[in-house]
Amino acid sequence: MQEFEFIRHIHRHCEELPANGFEGIGDDCAVLELGDEALVFTADALMEGVHFLRHTTSPRELGHKALAVNLSDVAAMGVRPVAVMLSISLPRDLDEGWAEAFIKGFTALAKQHQVALIGGDTTRSEQGIALSVTAIGRGPRTSLKRRREAHVGDTLLVTAPLGASAAGLRELLQGHLNHPLAAQHRTPQPEIEVGMWLGLRPEVHAMMDLSDGLASDICHIAEESHVGFDLDLATIPVAEGATREDAICGGEDYKLLLTANSDSAAQLCRDFEARFARPLYPIGHISSHEMRWHEKGVAVATPTPYFHHF
Amino acid sequence: MQEFEFIRHIHRHCEELPANGFEGIGDDCAVLELGDEALVFTADALMEGVHFLRHTTSPRELGHKALAVNLSDVAAMGVRPVAVMLSISLPRDLDEGWAEAFIKGFTALAKQHQVALIGGDTTRSEQGIALSVTAIGRGPRTSLKRRREAHVGDTLLVTAPLGASAAGLRELLQGHLNHPLAAQHRTPQPEIEVGMWLGLRPEVHAMMDLSDGLASDICHIAEESHVGFDLDLATIPVAEGATREDAICGGEDYKLLLTANSDSAAQLCRDFEARFARPLYPIGHISSHEMRWHEKGVAVATPTPYFHHF
Repeated sequence: MQEFEFIRHIHRHCEELPANGFEGIGDDCAVLELGDEALVFTADALMEGVHFLRHTTSPRELGHKALAVNLSDVAAMGVRPVAVMLSISLPRDLDEGWAEAFIKGFTALAKQHQVALIGGDTTRSEQGIALSVTAIGRGPRTSLKRRREAHVGDTLLVTAPLGASAAGLRELLQGHLNHPLAAQHRTPQPEIEVGMWLGLRPEVHAMMDLSDGLASDICHIAEESHVGFDLDLATIPVAEGATREDAICGGEDYKLLLTANSDSAAQLCRDFEARFARPLYPIGHISSHEMRWHEKGVAVATPTPYFHHF
Repeated sequence: MQEFEFIRHIHRHCEELPANGFEGIGDDCAVLELGDEALVFTADALMEGVHFLRHTTSPRELGHKALAVNLSDVAAMGVRPVAVMLSISLPRDLDEGWAEAFIKGFTALAKQHQVALIGGDTTRSEQGIALSVTAIGRGPRTSLKRRREAHVGDTLLVTAPLGASAAGLRELLQGHLNHPLAAQHRTPQPEIEVGMWLGLRPEVHAMMDLSDGLASDICHIAEESHVGFDLDLATIPVAEGATREDAICGGEDYKLLLTANSDSAAQLCRDFEARFARPLYPIGHISSHEMRWHEKGVAVATPTPYFHHF
């Protein structure tokens, strides 16, 4: 059975359930608005052999990554991650050093971003390590950025050069475990301060994090906002050591993709650079219907996303 | 490595993290108070081969149970479960019927208690089914019941006869899959309406759900409240078909254990019976220090909890 078939079952049965004030499936996080405030919620599972291999990822790096991917979802909503829950299932053959190193990696990133660890579950696993992390974010209701808020005419932007993670995965699979790009794949840095800063800017309309790859993720903004886009391949910033294909088709960069009012985009870019000492990158525009890819003005075929898990 | 050693690592590293307004580890749920309201959060993992066996639990029953155990944690805090997230990792060899039946069991219970399904994750698993459920509860701040609020002199009570789940597990392991007690083990009914009703009663002080068994769980109330108790084995209500030992030492009943002001306990029991058409059961008292078990006035040894997972 395919994952998407299962998701279809879930959607069909979910429709019979109440919303209870939550905005559910369809964005990086579920949202609960409470007066002037909003809380957001996200959960991710990481399975050994599917999302990571024990011999190519150290436990400390895995602890970092398990948290990073969830914090990234919260950052993509424009608010601060405040708390996480960790459920972890460990096989008997794992030595104690592994678990302690995992927790060190997890809590080091939590400490860096001042996130509370408020609960979870620890159990035994018959085979393989299973991880599940739930993250909670909190912020002003007006800061929330959703995938469905892109407007026709908006400028499309990304917050950093892309492709380092896909290039790093290639190095890993070739056995170059200590390659600097491999480290970027194993320990992504979520754009938390950047996400919160963009949350406070009213000219930013839609936002999401890049986890499956630009070619794939941009379609979610288009679908949820009922819009199209014009995107020029030549304007996409490529991370050092990555190919342009990595930047467009590779996943797990955990940088942010956003749309902003085009009248304000130039000022937004200047303010971003003044605040973060690095550029914000315009890569195209939101249009009314079609999803169109160009290269220096010439239409090209839609890029095919990599299959980026093991 | 033992589970509790890992939890020790987590606790040590957690101490360096901020609380961000959350009350974390130490109760059935983490708590976030927001003005007159409170939100509560809990997460549980269920692993094939550890928490369930595929050949003794139908997918529909497993969907029910995965949700029930989390709703029970919310009910134990005295508030209403309002939303859940489901992360599910499925092996390739699983047929589509399994997944659909699982979701039917999950959503049937969600519908019964009007709980929203707001997100989660679906992934592949290399070996075995892995489930993780996060539940969110919401209610008046004054309804919250914590483990640490037991007072010396309080009456100890349970909300239903105990032991059916342990007796049902014994039937299951003997191959009696269709025994009525086996069904009670596989599809526990969380005490949601009961928990919310008790949450509104100010004479109820401490509360928790019975998941590991009375002999084990009662120690959490004693430790968190810095109190002891006197408990008479003969007063513990035993479910039909269960032994007294099942009721005291068996796990997974998902009934509620609470303490209440002893001056109001008799009235509480009358009002409970008027509301739910079944009794509330006094089983002992909170004392200042020791945890003491009696049988008709004679001191007996502390009962040893069953090891209740597969």
